[in-house]
Amino acid sequence: MKWCLVASLLTVLTSSQGILTTLSQTNGKYKYDYATIPFLAEVLKLIVSCVFLWRERKKSPPLKMTTDWKTVRLFPIPSVIYLIHNNVQFATLMYVDTSTYQIMGNLKIVTTGILFRLFLKKKLSNLQWMAIVLLAVGTTTSQVKGCGEASCDSLFSAPIQGYMLGSLSACLSALAGVYTEFLMKKNNDSLYWQNIQLYTFGAIFNMARLVTDDFRGGFENGPWWQRLFNGYSITTWLVVLNLGSTGLLVSWLMKYADNIVKVYSTSMAMLLTMVLSVFLFSFKPTLQLFLGIIICMMSLHMYFAPPNMLVDMPSTIKPDPESLVDVPVDRKTDS
Amino acid sequence: MKWCLVASLLTVLTSSQGILTTLSQTNGKYKYDYATIPFLAEVLKLIVSCVFLWRERKKSPPLKMTTDWKTVRLFPIPSVIYLIHNNVQFATLMYVDTSTYQIMGNLKIVTTGILFRLFLKKKLSNLQWMAIVLLAVGTTTSQVKGCGEASCDSLFSAPIQGYMLGSLSACLSALAGVYTEFLMKKNNDSLYWQNIQLYTFGAIFNMARLVTDDFRGGFENGPWWQRLFNGYSITTWLVVLNLGSTGLLVSWLMKYADNIVKVYSTSMAMLLTMVLSVFLFSFKPTLQLFLGIIICMMSLHMYFAPPNMLVDMPSTIKPDPESLVDVPVDRKTDS
Repeated sequence: MKWCLVASLLTVLTSSQGILTTLSQTNGKYKYDYATIPFLAEVLKLIVSCVFLWRERKKSPPLKMTTDWKTVRLFPIPSVIYLIHNNVQFATLMYVDTSTYQIMGNLKIVTTGILFRLFLKKKLSNLQWMAIVLLAVGTTTSQVKGCGEASCDSLFSAPIQGYMLGSLSACLSALAGVYTEFLMKKNNDSLYWQNIQLYTFGAIFNMARLVTDDFRGGFENGPWWQRLFNGYSITTWLVVLNLGSTGLLVSWLMKYADNIVKVYSTSMAMLLTMVLSVFLFSFKPTLQLFLGIIICMMSLHMYFAPPNMLVDMPSTIKPDPESLVDVPVDRKTDS
Repeated sequence: MKWCLVASLLTVLTSSQGILTTLSQTNGKYKYDYATIPFLAEVLKLIVSCVFLWRERKKSPPLKMTTDWKTVRLFPIPSVIYLIHNNVQFATLMYVDTSTYQIMGNLKIVTTGILFRLFLKKKLSNLQWMAIVLLAVGTTTSQVKGCGEASCDSLFSAPIQGYMLGSLSACLSALAGVYTEFLMKKNNDSLYWQNIQLYTFGAIFNMARLVTDDFRGGFENGPWWQRLFNGYSITTWLVVLNLGSTGLLVSWLMKYADNIVKVYSTSMAMLLTMVLSVFLFSFKPTLQLFLGIIICMMSLHMYFAPPNMLVDMPSTIKPDPESLVDVPVDRKTDS
């Protein structure tokens, strides 16, 4: 199954994204402007999509490309949602500390499930809903602060505004994902043509961000295009390349799989990053990380395994008549 | 369903057992000899079972009571297993600290599932196995040390003997439960007659424990029967009454339900105790307790809900043809 491979690749790349970003720092600080990374990644994705579209057109001429304004005008919407999301995120962090914010971020898994159900009209079984909640519980478990960790701010002591903004942030993030899936599946347009529209607006919005930063900083370091590659190392370029590839895989999944597959990929990536950090950054393994991994694996199996495989009883084993006499009152039939 | 009620009652009583035991202490210490509690509880259960058997005989004369030595001789076995278990527990605690021991105790849930499958030849679906593992994960999650807690001994740093003895302890505890179920279901004997045999040996073994303690202590405080009720308060009697009732309910479940139902009851009781402790003993509620409760509830639903209810898709909802065109490549059928 192709989507399975793509999802696994997304897990590996999302995980290396975190590790590469950490490795690209010098003494715990960025020597380059981090806001340039997503902009360059959008440009990279745009170039790759153009090349693929061009190759696809050569091969199969009757390529479907909707170009009317009624459709194109929908493509900046995900970028707009992310823009609002970033501002809500900023506001949330004024009320809660980063670790509480990180814990609340897992709400996104559940809100994605809900919006996926509501907006895309996808049906989920009882067990699949439970799997989604368990995935959120599993990722949260892995992030529980261990004993002896420095910060010990209570998760339950932030002002109510913090929790409300955190929930809004989870909804917006889910909405952007679900909306993108809606866009990609709306018609049978070529994936690359849809990508081009998505990334063009993405690049524009990220450029706007760089310009805004320039104005805010009073052009202290010159305009953004002059300092675009300042402080870039090989690792920084790898971060750009990695982020771009991740984005392309997400687009593919939005068209040919769905948001839930993406949520599983990125959640597994978070756990993989924590496991790799144990080896790479001598991060101390905790019991909660181990428990979180088990919970998420169970959730994965519950969501994707064929229902028969889950609920069928194993083939009959002859009961030993010597060893056990069934008493008439049984658990399931007892009244 | 009767077994559901009995299991719920067992949860409440097991939970109050912990709370009553704490309340029976004076300044964090027992003013009475704690070893007298299980002995008196066995005697209490024996008396209650005798009364019930006598009443049952009056009502329905052809009561089934196997009295041949071949069957009776099996009834001390659970007591013998518990005796070995107590000694292994003591040995384990020489290698690991109490919190590690408590965490390892959750292994009992999984070993019970395995022995239940192997010895009683009960079949479990894939999902039920996952539910059992999740129950163990859920109870463990709720016990993860929060940040800021005093003791911070690493769970992974005990000597290997500690883990081996801990696993042995989990196996023995599960074996005692599974063996009791085997005994109770072995024939159609009256539950009360089976109880009488079980509790007679239970009382004898507990008495032997008191005598051994006397010899060890060099009869400093006189023989055990002279100091049996020393330091007893109303609460201490409630502890005895509660422990006795718990035992009777467990016997009932072993005969008419099974070990897994019992394991769920007692695991839920542990969580209930922690929640009640928040109110009674101003125990600080933690995120991990909250997560543990969600996991265990999911596990409960996964194990006991009818399979159809879990895997069936909700009744068809008309997809809005305007909003979404299905792309030909689908997640489940993609090759």
